[in-house]
Amino acid sequence: MKGYSDATKRFLLAAKHAEKTALQQLSSNCKLVNAVKDVIHQLQRERGISNVFLASRGHRFESQRAEQVELSLKREQALRSQLKSMYLTGTESFSNIRLLSSITLALQGMDHLPTLREKVAKLNLPPLDSTQAYCRLISGLLSVVFEAADVASDPVITRLLVALFNFMQAKEYAGQERAWGAIGFAETHFNRRLCDRLEQLQVAQQHSFGIFREFADAQEQQLWTELEGGPATRDVKQLRNMIQQLADGSPIAEELSEVWYEVATRRIDEMQAIEEHLTERLLEVATQRVQQADADLKNHRRRLQALENQPEPGSSPLTMLFDPAMPGLQGSGALDPNLANGAPSVPDTNGFPQSGTPTANTASGLADAESLSSHRSFYDLLRDQSEHIKRMSNELEEAKRAISEHKAIDRAKLIMMQQWNLTEDAAYRRLQKHAMDQNARISDVAESVIRASSKKPA
Amino acid sequence: MKGYSDATKRFLLAAKHAEKTALQQLSSNCKLVNAVKDVIHQLQRERGISNVFLASRGHRFESQRAEQVELSLKREQALRSQLKSMYLTGTESFSNIRLLSSITLALQGMDHLPTLREKVAKLNLPPLDSTQAYCRLISGLLSVVFEAADVASDPVITRLLVALFNFMQAKEYAGQERAWGAIGFAETHFNRRLCDRLEQLQVAQQHSFGIFREFADAQEQQLWTELEGGPATRDVKQLRNMIQQLADGSPIAEELSEVWYEVATRRIDEMQAIEEHLTERLLEVATQRVQQADADLKNHRRRLQALENQPEPGSSPLTMLFDPAMPGLQGSGALDPNLANGAPSVPDTNGFPQSGTPTANTASGLADAESLSSHRSFYDLLRDQSEHIKRMSNELEEAKRAISEHKAIDRAKLIMMQQWNLTEDAAYRRLQKHAMDQNARISDVAESVIRASSKKPA
Repeated sequence: MKGYSDATKRFLLAAKHAEKTALQQLSSNCKLVNAVKDVIHQLQRERGISNVFLASRGHRFESQRAEQVELSLKREQALRSQLKSMYLTGTESFSNIRLLSSITLALQGMDHLPTLREKVAKLNLPPLDSTQAYCRLISGLLSVVFEAADVASDPVITRLLVALFNFMQAKEYAGQERAWGAIGFAETHFNRRLCDRLEQLQVAQQHSFGIFREFADAQEQQLWTELEGGPATRDVKQLRNMIQQLADGSPIAEELSEVWYEVATRRIDEMQAIEEHLTERLLEVATQRVQQADADLKNHRRRLQALENQPEPGSSPLTMLFDPAMPGLQGSGALDPNLANGAPSVPDTNGFPQSGTPTANTASGLADAESLSSHRSFYDLLRDQSEHIKRMSNELEEAKRAISEHKAIDRAKLIMMQQWNLTEDAAYRRLQKHAMDQNARISDVAESVIRASSKKPA
Repeated sequence: MKGYSDATKRFLLAAKHAEKTALQQLSSNCKLVNAVKDVIHQLQRERGISNVFLASRGHRFESQRAEQVELSLKREQALRSQLKSMYLTGTESFSNIRLLSSITLALQGMDHLPTLREKVAKLNLPPLDSTQAYCRLISGLLSVVFEAADVASDPVITRLLVALFNFMQAKEYAGQERAWGAIGFAETHFNRRLCDRLEQLQVAQQHSFGIFREFADAQEQQLWTELEGGPATRDVKQLRNMIQQLADGSPIAEELSEVWYEVATRRIDEMQAIEEHLTERLLEVATQRVQQADADLKNHRRRLQALENQPEPGSSPLTMLFDPAMPGLQGSGALDPNLANGAPSVPDTNGFPQSGTPTANTASGLADAESLSSHRSFYDLLRDQSEHIKRMSNELEEAKRAISEHKAIDRAKLIMMQQWNLTEDAAYRRLQKHAMDQNARISDVAESVIRASSKKPA
């Protein structure tokens, strides 16, 4: 007897193998997210250009529009290739259902882009309807990024995806601000309502950028600080102030439309550099994680082999039955304090990288792998793995806090839309108002809405 | 052009296929949970019998012990077969890492049961150490049930697994109460400490039974009420009272040990009937869910086929680009209220079965399938599926509340053990005390411990 059965060995390896498989899927999802990011960026430009084109009844931005459509098509093709490679592996039925569903919806939108573009080309669509259509498609594509973050199984990658999703969401609010602004300028006047809407989008941007900064690394934060203090943001702020002065409906020169579009675009294009930084880091970490999981799996196999060839230990090896660190009989710890103080299997949460620089993680991964090859028992191997998994789960849960809050707000909105027949906007504003009135976080208000509604139908 | 690309169709089916695959895995996990439940029940009996056998220095329960070991072995073999069938499907690397890890740990414990039994047979182990070893193994097996609940992708099955896990946890506390009681009776005296420990286990039982009742169906609640009002519970309560009178250390007749064991066992055996009811329903629902998912997938395929053979629609079909129910430009809903009030895609949470009787769910599933075969567009199919998935996710999140709370308490305990060098017991008691002092729920106290600790190392 080696102190463990074949089944135990098999499941030990299966857990390690499952970790690798999950990271491979995650890595493929990261590539997908990268392709989605590129499509969104081009669609945001296409939306703005189409808007000016429509509002000016085809007088402005005709050639820019044609060029932009080419750029969008190129990125769409790259995304479609990425999606194709996903289902060519034959593992798509093990993917997450919600991720697949969000992909399907986004694809359907992309399938109809030619129809939308034709209507725009023929000036057969009001600017607002065109903007709406692009917004819906981008919202659908952003959902893919959100779901990819939600199903991620690795804490460092999850933190990166949360940062990226919130950055992209903020950038989309900036894009919508550009679109509403373009409508106002092109129509040569603003009004109170349009100004309120623009302000709302500015607040929403700051909220999402705030979450991004919480999860970003030092370099990304630095890039962000530079952007906020740079000339593009200064110019946008100047025009924002000007618009606020125009809430009374004073007429403005039509040409300002292009200035607004160009200034807002410069700021959004600068945002793209941060997006690129985030996605580059994402792809790098994902690749490293897969490599590390692969090395760990091989090491586990080698270690098991070595244990099998080892002579039988004289004394019986430690097992979970006699390990004082395992939870057992309630109250026995208090009876014999030495029993529980011996070697508590508490995950060293402080030792786990919080900000998650990829190099630091790889280094610690290799150190793990090395120490595993020293002489230790099967149970040590098992317990190390179990603690590694617990530590990852705890870190993962921490990283998913921002995602849960986002989901709670979404659910609360749906409940309120249904109960009081509100629009999504109105529901969100009501949540926001409650939070301000009660000096509470918006996600806590959302949680109380959900709790209250789940109690009603007993 | 049919209004959708091959990729869109492929991902629509992939999402449906992923749902079926997830349910098949879940169904296999449910069978595993059922086998685990049987092993735990026998090990609980074996623990109690071994305890009396050891405490009486081999004078009592010798033959019962031999018979019990045979019963335990039989259930262990059934569990091992179930595990074997899991990895024979070759899909184990798509299983959840934490579930696989918990299985590995439990298997390692079972691998060492022969050593434990040998020590018991030779009276080579103090009763407390034997009890501890069985408790650790049972705790490891309970983790498998917990992880199975945590990874479940179906709201009704999750609710059932939460009910079952909490019932099994409560039954385990009852088993530990029996064990501590047996130690006291066999040693012919109690003390204040032992009495406190017993009371603590009674409180823990009530807490877990409370969660079970929240998630149980009417029949299970009825069974529970009958158990609580029945003779077995009455007898246990009488002996509990008697023990409280003996806290001063008064001597008692050794024979009472067997009476306590038998009375406590009768109550625990009655609990088994409820466990059986829960697992039978679990296996039934799981089977139905897989069948339903299979029928849904076939129906989707048929519907897609029909759409392909249909003549091209004269007008362009609805797409997500022009669907007013899709989220789009922020603020446009307020601008044009008709835009958003048209057909909001709000999941009908009230319409979704909350308590989840399997028949009701199957019926609604079939109704869905039937209405899908009427003439509708591809986008309708897609939107129905997307809403179905959102509804399931929301329900799932609701059902997982109890699991998150359990995890938060576990994490807070680990943090406190590490920070103040406490035993697990002491950490739990401190959480409990804080909750009572602040008149808060223990899970809320746990959340604040986690939040405070994650803020410290900046």
